[in-house]
Amino acid sequence: MTNLRGVVPPVVTPLTENFEVDYPSYTKVLEHLIAGGVHGLFVLGSTSEVIFHDEATRRQILEHTVKVVNGRLPVLAGVIDPTTDRVIGHARAAQSIGVDAVVVTAPFYTRTSQPEVADHFRYVREAIDLPVIAYDIPVCVHTKLDRKTTVTLAREGTIAGLKDSSGDDGNFRFCLLDLMDKPDVFLMTGSEIVVDNALQMGAHGVVPGLANVDPHGYVRLWNHAQVGNWEAARKEQERLCRLFEMVWVSLPRTSAGSAGVGAFKTAMRALGVIATNTMARPQRSLNAEEAAQVEEIVRAAGLAS
Amino acid sequence: MTNLRGVVPPVVTPLTENFEVDYPSYTKVLEHLIAGGVHGLFVLGSTSEVIFHDEATRRQILEHTVKVVNGRLPVLAGVIDPTTDRVIGHARAAQSIGVDAVVVTAPFYTRTSQPEVADHFRYVREAIDLPVIAYDIPVCVHTKLDRKTTVTLAREGTIAGLKDSSGDDGNFRFCLLDLMDKPDVFLMTGSEIVVDNALQMGAHGVVPGLANVDPHGYVRLWNHAQVGNWEAARKEQERLCRLFEMVWVSLPRTSAGSAGVGAFKTAMRALGVIATNTMARPQRSLNAEEAAQVEEIVRAAGLAS
Amino acid sequence: MTNLRGVVPPVVTPLTENFEVDYPSYTKVLEHLIAGGVHGLFVLGSTSEVIFHDEATRRQILEHTVKVVNGRLPVLAGVIDPTTDRVIGHARAAQSIGVDAVVVTAPFYTRTSQPEVADHFRYVREAIDLPVIAYDIPVCVHTKLDRKTTVTLAREGTIAGLKDSSGDDGNFRFCLLDLMDKPDVFLMTGSEIVVDNALQMGAHGVVPGLANVDPHGYVRLWNHAQVGNWEAARKEQERLCRLFEMVWVSLPRTSAGSAGVGAFKTAMRALGVIATNTMARPQRSLNAEEAAQVEEIVRAAGLAS
Amino acid sequence: MTNLRGVVPPVVTPLTENFEVDYPSYTKVLEHLIAGGVHGLFVLGSTSEVIFHDEATRRQILEHTVKVVNGRLPVLAGVIDPTTDRVIGHARAAQSIGVDAVVVTAPFYTRTSQPEVADHFRYVREAIDLPVIAYDIPVCVHTKLDRKTTVTLAREGTIAGLKDSSGDDGNFRFCLLDLMDKPDVFLMTGSEIVVDNALQMGAHGVVPGLANVDPHGYVRLWNHAQVGNWEAARKEQERLCRLFEMVWVSLPRTSAGSAGVGAFKTAMRALGVIATNTMARPQRSLNAEEAAQVEEIVRAAGLAS
Repeated sequence: MTNLRGVVPPVVTPLTENFEVDYPSYTKVLEHLIAGGVHGLFVLGSTSEVIFHDEATRRQILEHTVKVVNGRLPVLAGVIDPTTDRVIGHARAAQSIGVDAVVVTAPFYTRTSQPEVADHFRYVREAIDLPVIAYDIPVCVHTKLDRKTTVTLAREGTIAGLKDSSGDDGNFRFCLLDLMDKPDVFLMTGSEIVVDNALQMGAHGVVPGLANVDPHGYVRLWNHAQVGNWEAARKEQERLCRLFEMVWVSLPRTSAGSAGVGAFKTAMRALGVIATNTMARPQRSLNAEEAAQVEEIVRAAGLAS
Repeated sequence: MTNLRGVVPPVVTPLTENFEVDYPSYTKVLEHLIAGGVHGLFVLGSTSEVIFHDEATRRQILEHTVKVVNGRLPVLAGVIDPTTDRVIGHARAAQSIGVDAVVVTAPFYTRTSQPEVADHFRYVREAIDLPVIAYDIPVCVHTKLDRKTTVTLAREGTIAGLKDSSGDDGNFRFCLLDLMDKPDVFLMTGSEIVVDNALQMGAHGVVPGLANVDPHGYVRLWNHAQVGNWEAARKEQERLCRLFEMVWVSLPRTSAGSAGVGAFKTAMRALGVIATNTMARPQRSLNAEEAAQVEEIVRAAGLAS
Repeated sequence: MTNLRGVVPPVVTPLTENFEVDYPSYTKVLEHLIAGGVHGLFVLGSTSEVIFHDEATRRQILEHTVKVVNGRLPVLAGVIDPTTDRVIGHARAAQSIGVDAVVVTAPFYTRTSQPEVADHFRYVREAIDLPVIAYDIPVCVHTKLDRKTTVTLAREGTIAGLKDSSGDDGNFRFCLLDLMDKPDVFLMTGSEIVVDNALQMGAHGVVPGLANVDPHGYVRLWNHAQVGNWEAARKEQERLCRLFEMVWVSLPRTSAGSAGVGAFKTAMRALGVIATNTMARPQRSLNAEEAAQVEEIVRAAGLAS
Repeated sequence: MTNLRGVVPPVVTPLTENFEVDYPSYTKVLEHLIAGGVHGLFVLGSTSEVIFHDEATRRQILEHTVKVVNGRLPVLAGVIDPTTDRVIGHARAAQSIGVDAVVVTAPFYTRTSQPEVADHFRYVREAIDLPVIAYDIPVCVHTKLDRKTTVTLAREGTIAGLKDSSGDDGNFRFCLLDLMDKPDVFLMTGSEIVVDNALQMGAHGVVPGLANVDPHGYVRLWNHAQVGNWEAARKEQERLCRLFEMVWVSLPRTSAGSAGVGAFKTAMRALGVIATNTMARPQRSLNAEEAAQVEEIVRAAGLAS
């Protein structure tokens, strides 16, 4: 895990119409991604609707994942909840199940300072025997990880990597520069639409939710970048940007939270990967008209549908 | 519960130095508030550090509360977690333990629309057989309950009341006006420092964290308001405002989250109510120098210390 | 000017359909307010659309105001522009025309610190020979005046007063408490809907845009407060709250900026005070359908229409 | 002007210690930039402290610029003030002086909707006979130009280009994609630190404030990008990122506004281009200790100092 590189999708969690995890579909999602050539799997992230799942369900999802993946790829497990000791509880469960790393956000609901946020990561790291990856997602937790916080935690060995979903690409670049002499720390972008840029900056990995729909596309983009074919990377990225337009189809009828993952689920249903596009409560799922628009976008991007 | 009125403190949860609930101190907190003449108790709210406690601990706290209170006052239980079904889980536990109402925030971490927020309250209400009180606290959940959302939920019977900690007193007033013909809906302010104003507007109750330190003060303020002695209410409020200054003593060394409740705990320790001023991790507790400043403020406000 | 008290409306600037100041209507606005019993006039504030007027137009408006008012009431002049020396230019012009005080916001467009903001007020004060009133309006300038900044500037004699349009009533109360021993500093609220509360706290004046529509209402409210008749004050305030509902009529077709003043102008046109409801470019004026709704609200509030 | 391409620095305005424009230094700034090989000049932008200058000073700056530049490069003039008709006043003056295009922000201080913002640009365009460039700078005006607003204005011919200083690189990319068939519209980034990325996306120009300090660096970066040498572009960008660190040296003693341009001025003084590092009031200039740190950064980046 000290040298994770590549495309690491945040894995969608399909639901039945009764809001339970649809494990047959979930198995298909995992196989679809592995067949797509991705380099790792991030389960129980925001795209997985982790925040809607209680402890027992999270445990089942991880157990199922570890069993299906069976060592073929590294499995990163989100252990996302508002505060330190609750996160530690999730992290210990994830460790016992056999994941390869845990992914931790800043605390939320409570209002913390950057020193308290740094201590949060330290407490989690001390409590388990797995790499900790920091997840910078201010749109959900309403705290940005300062460059100094990230770099300090990386240098002292508290965190093994970063998933940056902050959209602050300038700050991400400074983290890359500051940690250039620490190649074992892997810094990943959570973007779907400026992945070529992040790779050109030197990012070590990408965690795009849209890879659930088109893993091959992001793997091609990654491969172009590895050989310095930036023009081809850009073309692939631009195709994926057009595919990404699906995330706005249901707005404003739904919400910023449900429109994106809801569109991914709708596209995956159209592609035959999962059975429903049901979103966890109280989110609204995309309706038939919106689904037709998503399907049109999927076809226009060259995906069989 | 359809006619709750008065001072309903959000009850502080004392911790041992090992970050466990200090039940002997907690019993003293409850007795201190009851002796102070308050009209109800709101446990497992933000001031109670609810978000730091896992399911098992929350259950223990509620069981202890219900046993100690023993029907002397209504007990409102916060069932605060990011999403609908997890909230329902807490709410069912609270109902089984015997609380009188549950207090529910908008979803957090996930980004929801106002219609999804309204559905969230409806799903919770349908799942239990207890009154639901909406808790509007955008500083924590980063969603404001729109006036229309609050009023619709109240009129349709989904919510029995509101705790407004948004600081938007104009919006609160419009909710009071819109629901003037529904006197069974109780609208409470979460403010500590404009309580006299909220009562003059017609608020039915007040939920001030500072009442943990000085319950008698808020009860006097309430009583002055009940007889229309607004000048005395103002004087009492102004004294409490000066007491409230404790919440800024440890800034910026601590955080917005830990400075306030941390000061309340420090003052309560000085008053002999609880044993430590320990805050849940990763929050910083007030240090000795800060404690001395808090104690000076407590003395200046006329409280024995 | 060291003892300003009472209702000080921010005066609407009527426009012709060609976006020029309609001086005959403007004279009627001034007389309407004076006849309404107000205690001062704040011209060239946000409600006056000051920010749309160039230097020459501002000068004409002030000259016209001073001529018409002719010493009957104190005239406060907004000298609102983004930066210090431009504000000083407006302030010197205002002084030469004969106003009684100038009203100054924090800098905007540029991003300043609180010490720079404090210096801004000091530079303006040093450049003129008139009282300076601080105008705290973060919704427009995107900087909040810290309690410490306001109190320091008041204690050192830089500012003679405050117009607080921040909506942070708790902070306003602490300013009142901190300056209780400085009765020559007058602290005014910019609220329309919690004026009774502000007066109960001890505010020395109120600056409600809605007083352009109903000056008598706010004067009655003020008078009730002066004799401690808080129940009557509340009833008057509640009537004015219902009148205030006009500000949302044209949303979202118009904007937060044009909906409020646009409604005031529409109501004043209905009351025969001004000739058009035209808003300065690029703002949208209320249309006929919206005007009909505003007029219905005006009638329901008991104003002849 | 329909085919502007390349590096277009926002030109710093040097001041004397008495806060007046230092024209001899200003001439040297212009020659320094032209000698640096830049492709155009953007005067009276945020970096020029435009917002601190009154109409007469702005006119003098433009006249001086046009005279010194004398047609060697296109001159873009910021016409930045809060509202439409005031912007038109500046724009007409700029046109009469002979600039090549005007640069216009969304309205500020007042709160406008996107349709009102679009109308704002249309009114300005109709009033003059020069290309209009939209300047998207939400950190100053607190309104973001929506993708739809930008694309609509570009397609209908209202705007000839965009300077995007919003930091939202994903949105910028979608604007590039949407306008791919309109190569006469030039889309420029205002970033200093992800310029290589913007160029890889297809941006037509870059407007980096830091180019005042090191124009050769940004021209080299531009040239590398033109021949697709992305690795060299990245290396140059990384060197410039290290140079950019100067903008944080004086924080938090100064402000977000004064720290950046203040550092540029300090570096330019060290390089012998300008005489003082004085910032317009009420901004604080960098002090001697901070200047020493800036100079160390300048030397470390390989600039003679």
